[in-house]
Parts: sequence; structure tokens; C-alpha cells
Amino acid sequence: MTGTLPHDRGVADRKPRGAVPLGLLTDLYQLTMGAAYVQSGISETRASFELFVRRLPRARSYLVTAGLEQGLEYLSELRFRGPEISFLRRHPLFRHAPAAFFERLRALRFTGDVWAMPEGTIAFADEPLLRIEAPLIEAQLVETFVLSMINFQTTVASKAARIVQAAAGRPVIEFGTRRAHTAYAGLYGARAAFIGGCAGTSNVAAGYAFGIPILGTFAHSFVQAFPTESAAFQAFWATFRERTTLLIDTYDPLQGTERAARLPRPIAAVRLDSGDFHVVTRHMRQILDQHGRPEIRIMATGDLNEYRIEDLSRLKAPIDSYGVGTELITSQDAPALGGVYKLVEIERAGRAVGTAKFSLEKLSYPGRKQVYRRLEVARQRFHSDLIARVGEAAPRDPRFRLLPLLRPVMRQGLPLRPAEDVRHAQRRSAQQLDQLPARYKRLVEAARYPVAHSPRLRELLQQVREDEGDVGADGEQ
Amino acid sequence: MTGTLPHDRGVADRKPRGAVPLGLLTDLYQLTMGAAYVQSGISETRASFELFVRRLPRARSYLVTAGLEQGLEYLSELRFRGPEISFLRRHPLFRHAPAAFFERLRALRFTGDVWAMPEGTIAFADEPLLRIEAPLIEAQLVETFVLSMINFQTTVASKAARIVQAAAGRPVIEFGTRRAHTAYAGLYGARAAFIGGCAGTSNVAAGYAFGIPILGTFAHSFVQAFPTESAAFQAFWATFRERTTLLIDTYDPLQGTERAARLPRPIAAVRLDSGDFHVVTRHMRQILDQHGRPEIRIMATGDLNEYRIEDLSRLKAPIDSYGVGTELITSQDAPALGGVYKLVEIERAGRAVGTAKFSLEKLSYPGRKQVYRRLEVARQRFHSDLIARVGEAAPRDPRFRLLPLLRPVMRQGLPLRPAEDVRHAQRRSAQQLDQLPARYKRLVEAARYPVAHSPRLRELLQQVREDEGDVGADGEQ
Repeated sequence: MTGTLPHDRGVADRKPRGAVPLGLLTDLYQLTMGAAYVQSGISETRASFELFVRRLPRARSYLVTAGLEQGLEYLSELRFRGPEISFLRRHPLFRHAPAAFFERLRALRFTGDVWAMPEGTIAFADEPLLRIEAPLIEAQLVETFVLSMINFQTTVASKAARIVQAAAGRPVIEFGTRRAHTAYAGLYGARAAFIGGCAGTSNVAAGYAFGIPILGTFAHSFVQAFPTESAAFQAFWATFRERTTLLIDTYDPLQGTERAARLPRPIAAVRLDSGDFHVVTRHMRQILDQHGRPEIRIMATGDLNEYRIEDLSRLKAPIDSYGVGTELITSQDAPALGGVYKLVEIERAGRAVGTAKFSLEKLSYPGRKQVYRRLEVARQRFHSDLIARVGEAAPRDPRFRLLPLLRPVMRQGLPLRPAEDVRHAQRRSAQQLDQLPARYKRLVEAARYPVAHSPRLRELLQQVREDEGDVGADGEQ
Repeated sequence: MTGTLPHDRGVADRKPRGAVPLGLLTDLYQLTMGAAYVQSGISETRASFELFVRRLPRARSYLVTAGLEQGLEYLSELRFRGPEISFLRRHPLFRHAPAAFFERLRALRFTGDVWAMPEGTIAFADEPLLRIEAPLIEAQLVETFVLSMINFQTTVASKAARIVQAAAGRPVIEFGTRRAHTAYAGLYGARAAFIGGCAGTSNVAAGYAFGIPILGTFAHSFVQAFPTESAAFQAFWATFRERTTLLIDTYDPLQGTERAARLPRPIAAVRLDSGDFHVVTRHMRQILDQHGRPEIRIMATGDLNEYRIEDLSRLKAPIDSYGVGTELITSQDAPALGGVYKLVEIERAGRAVGTAKFSLEKLSYPGRKQVYRRLEVARQRFHSDLIARVGEAAPRDPRFRLLPLLRPVMRQGLPLRPAEDVRHAQRRSAQQLDQLPARYKRLVEAARYPVAHSPRLRELLQQVREDEGDVGADGEQ
């Protein structure tokens, strides 16, 4: 083995590090920008940032929004404490930074306004999911945490919706914490999976913190810990009785099913974690029925995703519920959402000015926006969305109900409503998915839902583009 | 908008939820198994579990281990507190569970022994990265947290090593927190990226908690917040002087470079975040050199991965450092590591008995193991690894140094050494990567490093397999 271990330090060095300081859970450039904003006197200028996704991940036609509650919690709780400020002050990078910057951090509370789509909203590319209007330094600082939380939870909620749809009415349970990007991601991912339509999770903390139904059976190691499989089954049954679910494939799934069928009735379910689910579950169902055990349901787990589950649904495999781990909690085929957070408006000489960046590959629209959904009145189906300027009257049409998607959720740093029950968000996504036409719900070929920009927004874009041409030239070349 | 918001509850409901309870950051089945172990009187039986990876992710020939320190911290700090136990006790699933189970949780401290490869070790499929020997209930309960932490950090450290190698000596900075699976994953991922060879991170908390170098510049929004790009550059320079790094492509990268070159000297660097890096950075270098600014270095960021960086290295693009975000922090091409945690030995009637599961696709070896690395003495190169039984004398050969990779790190719940400085782990991975033959470091086609199982281990496998045949049959069919 190369490298040496520092045996010279005392074991007492391994002290609990306590909670991670919320203020430092950010990119350093938010703080360097903050210092330069203070230095140049614009840190308190009113600024508006919008969070949106330029392009949907592969095979996705829609997003299910999630993560807002944790974003708002962060805004409410954000503080910089003494040790954190000392850490920054001592950093060589901040050697020339003004003392006023560190004072500003010490006093910092988030005092801005937030508009957002409620969690569980079906959303599309280019639509702002959230807008923060605040003093520039505050709106800038909070980017990293808010973005990572909403990016991640929206990724998982969107993946969950696909899997739940493939399961065609059978419950899907989120089982992925061990493969999550830490157990903390497991906790928030379980929450997002529930919003996307999962019936529950194996993550106990998610049950404790969010009231999400928790489910659990046992592992192969449980069976191995007993001298025989029967002894293991007996022990589990003695502890859980009618709520017993047995993993039956440690040795042989059909023998395991036989053993389960001989336990006192009722028990809840048997779980298969390997093999050809379609073939084996048919044999399992037969065995259970032969023993007169129709109450015992069959759960399938192990390397499942929306495509495999859709196959099993089509083949009418006698599976009553699914447990999905890795593929769901990491959104394995598309593990990152390209959500961005862009300055869209800033006060300059007492006037709000739209801003945007205009590189060819990354066009974005300036100005504060509202998203209107057009719902066909006759069929209660989504027709199209319109992105317009805030305050702009959206065109009326009697065929459509016009629903503004962004709502005020925080004013002057104070939440406008209590934290929403995660069940509300789950119901919202289910109702909206019902209203989304089928072509956008295909699992394989993404379809482009119509999202238009209003004429006034396009005018603003044109105007800002002309102004920025001058800005880019800087009047000095 | 469908769904209603719960306006009937008071805003006071949004109270800080405090720290996530560590004991509940687990899969429910760890707790149901725990209850059944107590119920059947085997919860205190000595058991050994090993953590290993069956198959390496695509295109990978090796792993860089990481996450052990946070795993050990978790073991040291694990407690179940009153509200958490009440939550479980009230759950309908535990209605028949014995009171002794909840008492056991209340008193629970991790009292086991842990053997592990130090962080930054180069490891391969099938090799135990960690072994926990403890009373069955303790060893079982800790699976989920330890597995998720080591799975994730090992994934990112392994990805980082590929990217750092592609950069051929130029520093790589981890910039991904906004795309991480929450900012918490960003924090631990930054740590893992450093172990894998990155020079620093943008995650400030990682600097604060682990002493990792932190780096930051500014975003496009910073430039947009000022009336002109020049004004933005001036403001940043006034705050950071010789440590100034300027993002130069908000409008036009070459004009931006010109403006940077006209600032008072010295400044640190300019950053390009878009476009054809190879072509544009050549022009940038020319401009900087024409202005006599050889001190200004060029940093490239934006949608980079090991393949694009290798291309830029080969083309000798005048890039001095790289910032890598999404691809690194999510290990986008292989975002999950299939690490598993398997019961390998348990005491039965006072005797330690090897255990394993034998489904065809998932063979694993029973018994407690040690991994020996054979280092060629002449060339100081890795030759091959041998997985053997604990206590087994590994065969000697004068051509090789034989290095045992698993070391004791915790005994009876107490750490045997202080937390290792993350720099040690980084040095270890660098040294071992030097000793790893080149064919295992190709980025595209994975090569299989020779890992053998000792004859005594194969004997044990055979013997347990025969015994398990009887166990599977249960003596009752």
C-alpha cells in the first residue's frame, strides 16, 4: 500500500462536524460576485432571475416540477454565521474585498419575492419554473442551492411519472436510496418520486419528514442469517403477521413461493428480485392459487425501469406492484437536468431593464414572464402554453381556459402559505398528466408540446438585442 | 391550475425541520429485519458483511475508492432518538413487533469492527472495499447509508480520475454543484472529485469542511448586471486584483479577451464557457500575447468530459485549466455504481459459517476476505490481485511485493485512527494510478485487470454451495 496514514494525530480529531453550513453550500463565484457587487455599489439593486430548462432530457416530452418546498425552506433559513464568515475573510481570494461585504453577509436574510409553479406541475422547455426578485446580492447568492434542489427533484419526479405510467395502475415503490448520490439525495429523491406518482418509498426518513408511505420487506441476507429459508420465513411472519412480505428467491423462487403459501393466513405478499419476471411470476401465481392463497400479492423488484415494466404490463404478467431503485433515484438514462438560472431584469437608473445573453446556441428571453396554459374547455385537455410578459393581458379565446402557472409563494422573504402537503403535489401531477394528450406521454419518441412566446415578449427580445449590441461594443471600440 | 393549496393552515407550519435523523436515513427493511432478528433471538449474533462491486461501470477498468470517512462518521454518530422511535412504534407495520426491538434501537451504538481499503485506493470488481463485523442487527442496519455514501463517492472519484488523466497535467476544477443530486451531493461529490485528482472545487462548503482548494470566477449574469462589459470587468478587478479571473464570452469572446488584456497587470486568467474551444482559445492566446500578457492563463468550462478534454489535449489547445461540472458530479455516462453489501459469515452454534447466495447471474464468494496486491518489484507496477480468506497465508514470490489492501479502521465502534486528511487520499490515488499499467487507463475500451480467488476461498465456496443445497431443500420437502 502506498501513502501513509496520519497516525500521529489523536483519535479525538474525529469529532462530529455538525450540520453543513447552509450559507456555504454554494459555488464560490456567487460570493466573489457578491463581493464585487458590494464593491461597486450595486448589491442592493433590484434584480429578477428566472429558472428554466433549455432542452428536455432525452425521450422526455414534459417535466414534473418538484423541489420548490426545499428551495423555499433554504431561503427562509439561509444565514452566514461567524465561523463561516471568518473562513471567507481569511481566504486569500478575498484579501482586497471590502469589509462591507462581510458585514452584508453577516446581516443577510433573504428578503425577496418568489413566484413559482407549484410542485407537481407539468412543465416544458423554456418555461420559467421559478422567479426570484430580490436585491441583486441575495438573488445571486441563492442560485446554486435552489437550482440543484429543483434540478434534482424535477429530474426524479419526471422519471417517476414515466415509470408509474408504464405500470398501468399497479403501485410503484421507490427503493433506490443505496444507489442514490448519498442517502440525503435518497431522501429528497423519494419525495420527488412520490410527487411523480410513486405510492411510497423504502426511505424511512422520507416517511418521517414528509409523511410519505414507507414500505419494506427483507433482504437475501435475512434468509442467509437463518439455518433454513423456512426458519427465516417463520421468524419474519412471527414479527409482522398479516403485513408480512417475503422475498422468495434467495435459493429457488418456486420453492420459496411454496413455503410462503404454507404460512398461516393472511400474509401480504411475496417479492421476486431476479430472473425472468414474466415467466416466474406466472408460476408463482399458480402455486399461490393452488394453495388457495389469492390474498398473497406478487411484487417484482430488481433492475426495473419504465421500458421493462411496460413490457410486463403488456404481457399481463401477474405482478401486483413494482419496486424500482437505481434507475429511478438516479434517473439513470438522463441523470442531470440542464436547469439554468438567468438574470432577466435589473433596475438601472431607477428603471427595470430586461437582460439576456445572445450567443447563438443559447438564446434566452429577457424580462419577467408568466406562463399561461390553454386548457381546452370541451375536452379538459392541455392545448398549448404561452409565455408572456408579466402584466401582459393574454389573448382570450372562449374555447380555452387560460391558467397562469406561476404563483406568488414568498413576499419580502416571508412564505405566503404554509408548506404544501406532498400529497397535494402528487394529486396535481396526476390530474395534469390526465389532461396531457397521449402523444406527449409516449416513452420512446419525445413530442414537442406547443409553447409560444407572446408578441410583446418577442418585441422586448428585439429591443434588448439592439441595446445589447451597443453594450457589447461598449462605446469604446 | 388544478389542485388546491392548503390555505387553511397557518404560515407558522413552515418551521425549520432541523437535521435529518441519521437513524432513519435507511431503508425500512433494515428495521423490519432488525425487529425480526430481535424477535427470533439472533440480533446479537456476530455477522460479517462485505461491500463490493460485481461489475465495473461501462468503459471503466478500475475504481478509485472514496466515501469511507463519511461512512465511519455515520457509524460513530448513529443514534435513534425518542421521536424517531415513537414514529416507528406508531407505524402499523410494527404493531406486532416486540418491545425489546424498540429498546434495542434506543440503546443502539455501533460497536463493531470495520476493515476497509483506505480512500484513494485503486480497486477492481469483486474486491471487498469494506467489511463490517458486528452484532447482526447493527451490521444490517448500517447498510443503506454506508453503501450509498461509498457508491456515490467512489463513482465520482473514479470519473474524476479519467477526466484528470485526459487533461494531461492541466488542473481540473470540479464545478458541478448546481447539477448535483442536491447541494449535499455536491459537497460530497466535490470531496470525491478531489480524491480522484481534481485540483479544487467551486463548492465553498467543501473548502470549509474538508480543506479542499476552492475556486470561483463570475457568471454571465454578473456582466449583465452592469451597463457594459468593461464596467463589469473593472468592478471585478477592483475587488480581486491579481486574483481576477474573467469570464469573457458574455457577448464576444475575442472582444472580451481584448478588454481583459487592457486591465492593470497582473490578473490571473480568462475563462471561456462556450464555442469551439480549440479554435477560440488559440485566438485568445494570440490576443493576450500581442498585449504582452503572458501571465493571463486560459480556463475552459462548459459541457466538458474526459473525451472532449482528451481531444483538446491532443490538439494542444492553449488551455491552462479545465472546469468540469455536470459530467463529473453526476458521472453522467454511468451515474450509479452497483455496489452491494452481502452477508459473508455468521456465527451459528458458536461457529463462524460462510454464507453466500448462488443464483447463476449473481455468484458471490462466502467468508471474510483480504485482498492482496502484487506489485512488480522491478518496475513498481501493479501485476495482479488475489482475493484470499482472512488469515490465509498468501503465496510468496520474490518478483512481487505483496500488499494487503484491507486495513482495520474501527474496532468495537471506535476509530483506530483520526480522520485522514483528504490530501493523503488524493496522493494515494495519484501514486497508485502511476503504478497501474497503461492498458487499464484507456478511456474507451475497458481492460480486465487480473483478479484471482485463492484456492482456499474456492474450496470454501464449494463447501458452502453443497451445504446451501441442503439448506435450500430445508430438509422438509
